[in-house]
Amino acid sequence: MKAYTYETVLHLRDTDATGRMFFPSAFALAVEAFEHFLLACGLPWTQWLRTGEYALPVVHAEADFLEPIQPGQPLKIAVQVERLGATSLHGVYEIVDPAGKTLARLRLVHVWLDPRSGTKQPIPEEWRVRLQAPDL
Amino acid sequence: MKAYTYETVLHLRDTDATGRMFFPSAFALAVEAFEHFLLACGLPWTQWLRTGEYALPVVHAEADFLEPIQPGQPLKIAVQVERLGATSLHGVYEIVDPAGKTLARLRLVHVWLDPRSGTKQPIPEEWRVRLQAPDL
Amino acid sequence: MKAYTYETVLHLRDTDATGRMFFPSAFALAVEAFEHFLLACGLPWTQWLRTGEYALPVVHAEADFLEPIQPGQPLKIAVQVERLGATSLHGVYEIVDPAGKTLARLRLVHVWLDPRSGTKQPIPEEWRVRLQAPDL
Amino acid sequence: MKAYTYETVLHLRDTDATGRMFFPSAFALAVEAFEHFLLACGLPWTQWLRTGEYALPVVHAEADFLEPIQPGQPLKIAVQVERLGATSLHGVYEIVDPAGKTLARLRLVHVWLDPRSGTKQPIPEEWRVRLQAPDL
Repeated sequence: MKAYTYETVLHLRDTDATGRMFFPSAFALAVEAFEHFLLACGLPWTQWLRTGEYALPVVHAEADFLEPIQPGQPLKIAVQVERLGATSLHGVYEIVDPAGKTLARLRLVHVWLDPRSGTKQPIPEEWRVRLQAPDL
Repeated sequence: MKAYTYETVLHLRDTDATGRMFFPSAFALAVEAFEHFLLACGLPWTQWLRTGEYALPVVHAEADFLEPIQPGQPLKIAVQVERLGATSLHGVYEIVDPAGKTLARLRLVHVWLDPRSGTKQPIPEEWRVRLQAPDL
Repeated sequence: MKAYTYETVLHLRDTDATGRMFFPSAFALAVEAFEHFLLACGLPWTQWLRTGEYALPVVHAEADFLEPIQPGQPLKIAVQVERLGATSLHGVYEIVDPAGKTLARLRLVHVWLDPRSGTKQPIPEEWRVRLQAPDL
Repeated sequence: MKAYTYETVLHLRDTDATGRMFFPSAFALAVEAFEHFLLACGLPWTQWLRTGEYALPVVHAEADFLEPIQPGQPLKIAVQVERLGATSLHGVYEIVDPAGKTLARLRLVHVWLDPRSGTKQPIPEEWRVRLQAPDL
């Protein structure tokens, strides 16, 4: 599947007193990238949030931090769907600098839940189609 | 009215690359203090959040930052209800170090809204009684 | 002075369980806008942060929240220098939706400090020139 | 090695518009717990941060989220040193509710770097002794 790229900058809010990125912010930036990726796929997550139609929590998250990231650093976050299971989406998020050097690599696993029962449910067909063939 | 005091520490998450507190975190810490203050008053805000019975947004916030705050600094946040209007609560939040020196002073104005219409509504009588005579 | 406009979106990270913007995030977004404004003025704050040449803390912050802000809401933040004092910069940050409706209005006061002594110092002439005539 | 337990509450700042914990906050809470753990071991990380004597970045982070976490939920975070390598500390962070039910489990890998060269260096002997026999 094609990768979607989200561009941002490391803002002060995402640094800490060590002078570098506060690492949990990398996960927040990956979520930002995922939000834009869904919209680029034609999947209006904000509507679904209002109506409570779907719940799509993260059940697993991991990251490797390869290079320190400085305040003001321009960043590209490439979002790639690695695997679509019956009820889960495995996504890979690569944070690179403008020269293409990888600074951090993250993996998030989202699962589809029935918002009322909290039990896993199949990924809706419309989502599956759009996630597999994003018109980016 | 009596002041309620919340104790915490300036964690790395609330600092930035300048080596000091990231100032918006002072507002987040004041909200933390307010959450504990409400519980100390016997006002279970988490229940009301689940049931959607009340909405209590902040319409005004301000802060003066008197001293830099270092990572690891122990903090006391004194919460004081300054004024209870018909539909609003004016609270003052004083952040002091263990020696009693004021580091920052904040003011937040919360208003009561009808969650459905979004219009202002009177502070519920139970809240008024409890906010005026906290059993801290 | 001309206004600089920063565009962003209200991401999930800046919301809370009330379903709306977590208000301290408005200050974090204003800081993001200020960072981009400085760069647009030709003021490389990231260099100065590394060399420790200047310290520019916020001593006062205030905000009025006029409308609730929903997740996914596109935002424009107009940054305007309201006043340049001898040692301070008063900035106004207006958060508007794409139709131009004001959602929140913030004011931040930054002061120039000598990083070693912590005492106020005059705004450097180069900064004053650039802040007064940004080539935006 | 003995576990250290840090107690906190899920504050509004750590939730998002889904009504639950914003998952990157779990990593921020683990860092909070780590900061208190170091102090409990007699390791004054705030001093070392000021002097720039050590740099101790996180190179790997992962988490499994087992249960949704609601605003206001009291939390215990048990910190356990799983392994001390030559230059790295592998820590496990278990977030449990007051009844002892595990809500999330995290693993962070910190490495010791020379702050000037950025190269890995052996864990200082004093740190090794204190981390292996915390007087909690």
